[in-house]
Amino acid sequence: MASPLQGVFAPVVTPVDAGLAPDPERLGALCHALLADGCHGLVLFGTTSEANSFALDERMALLEAVVAAGVPADKLIVGTGLCAIPETTRLTRHAVDLGCAGTLVLPPFYYKGQSDAGLHAAYAEVIERVGAARLRLYLYHIPQVSGVGITFPLIQSLVAAYPEQVVGIKDSTGDADHHASLLAAFPGFGVFTGTETLLLANQRGGGVGTITAGANVNARAIRRLYDGSKSAEADALQAKVDAVRQALQGAPLVAGLKAVIAHQRGDHDWRRVRPPLVALDDGARDALLAALDAAGYQAP
Amino acid sequence: MASPLQGVFAPVVTPVDAGLAPDPERLGALCHALLADGCHGLVLFGTTSEANSFALDERMALLEAVVAAGVPADKLIVGTGLCAIPETTRLTRHAVDLGCAGTLVLPPFYYKGQSDAGLHAAYAEVIERVGAARLRLYLYHIPQVSGVGITFPLIQSLVAAYPEQVVGIKDSTGDADHHASLLAAFPGFGVFTGTETLLLANQRGGGVGTITAGANVNARAIRRLYDGSKSAEADALQAKVDAVRQALQGAPLVAGLKAVIAHQRGDHDWRRVRPPLVALDDGARDALLAALDAAGYQAP
Repeated sequence: MASPLQGVFAPVVTPVDAGLAPDPERLGALCHALLADGCHGLVLFGTTSEANSFALDERMALLEAVVAAGVPADKLIVGTGLCAIPETTRLTRHAVDLGCAGTLVLPPFYYKGQSDAGLHAAYAEVIERVGAARLRLYLYHIPQVSGVGITFPLIQSLVAAYPEQVVGIKDSTGDADHHASLLAAFPGFGVFTGTETLLLANQRGGGVGTITAGANVNARAIRRLYDGSKSAEADALQAKVDAVRQALQGAPLVAGLKAVIAHQRGDHDWRRVRPPLVALDDGARDALLAALDAAGYQAP
Repeated sequence: MASPLQGVFAPVVTPVDAGLAPDPERLGALCHALLADGCHGLVLFGTTSEANSFALDERMALLEAVVAAGVPADKLIVGTGLCAIPETTRLTRHAVDLGCAGTLVLPPFYYKGQSDAGLHAAYAEVIERVGAARLRLYLYHIPQVSGVGITFPLIQSLVAAYPEQVVGIKDSTGDADHHASLLAAFPGFGVFTGTETLLLANQRGGGVGTITAGANVNARAIRRLYDGSKSAEADALQAKVDAVRQALQGAPLVAGLKAVIAHQRGDHDWRRVRPPLVALDDGARDALLAALDAAGYQAP
């Protein structure tokens, strides 16, 4: 079936306190702000969220806290893909039970070079074990981080087996050619680009939008681009968004986003990350803020 | 301090039942057999054990079952490295509390290309949180699978910070040059080779032995090599072991080991693996058994 979701989604960064424990209050506040800034929805526990640096119980507690804080579950996609089938199953069922609109599911990512048959079996086990007709699953293709890609034959076999549940993919390669091929090969499939730099290409090619780290700090401009994709200004809007993204890429992405948010909120606690990531020092943060200024970035 | 462990260690494959649940009885029986076949000790939950395909609670329950089955905890090294610090901490403390001799700890392996400072901080958090003077931690260097390597400066900084606890490393690169450099750079550190093909080189270079997948099916020959490393036959024993390992490499390693064990025990249930791995089909198993025969392999 068609993707139930489309638009601009921020994979929300996850705040931690001085003891590195997740901070549900700061997270809830950021979620509300991002929706107010124009995000159609949010992803909790993507790569940008440091998802895999948090334990299973921390992830479930955070999701419950965010929903309890009034963030609508029907605007949430939850990252639930781990290496072990029982754990992916548990997180996925938890998200479905809370009424979340979708799940974004990494393939099991420890073993590299596995066959499509093996990866199909892993996804199939999870889908069967969750056993929920209302599950809406997005495949997560980010091979440069996970080390395990989602091939076209794998998409095909999963959609054939679970047409109601496997509804889309997040393509985080940032590779324009790959993204174009994907859109061409699977018309009607819910294809998100993992970077706003390909948003216009995504929309022109029949995609459903973007789930992008950049939306954590630049949601308004990305939303303007999304809404204006058929306007005469579309390419100019894309160029503006691109310049900001390029500035963001000058620093480690997650630590950089957190440093920008800390600066904007006057809340230095926001700068913390969990190891193995490392927070920006003052010099790197100042350089990033200067690069964003030079790129014409406007804080929300 | 010096490595408390040395010799030949099998990273034991993990049996699963028809529902893919772990099978503690078959695992306990294999552990006893491998010790009887000459292993000095065992690793539970290495890469060969499909460790990361099992959930946290499954891993803890299996370890408890193996110890309850009479496998001595002081012969056990437990793989405990996950992506999230609280989970690595939990598994590590659990192994220490059960009296296990050591832990083999992957770096957080989701994010690639992280700094040594970030990886040091991740290990340091775990060691501090476990807070056990008797923790003996072996670093796990298997970059071709984990995607995250352990550099020499990282070893140096961790040993400097935790000299009592960071006692060694498993080098699973299979790269003779890298292994020789490692042995030369860290005399007195507990360096295991992750493949029996470098066992003699390891011993001649001052290493402490091998933790190798091959020991699941060829423990006796590997032990003979270990014991005979100073004898006139040493190179001939190494060549015999190498031939068997080469035959094993002709099939996917974990599925192949399980197929061989299934054949030897007349117990087809042993062939199962968890997705994303795929069990050998009959043809692949027969080819592997024939290759082992041709290599002069003798079942224990």
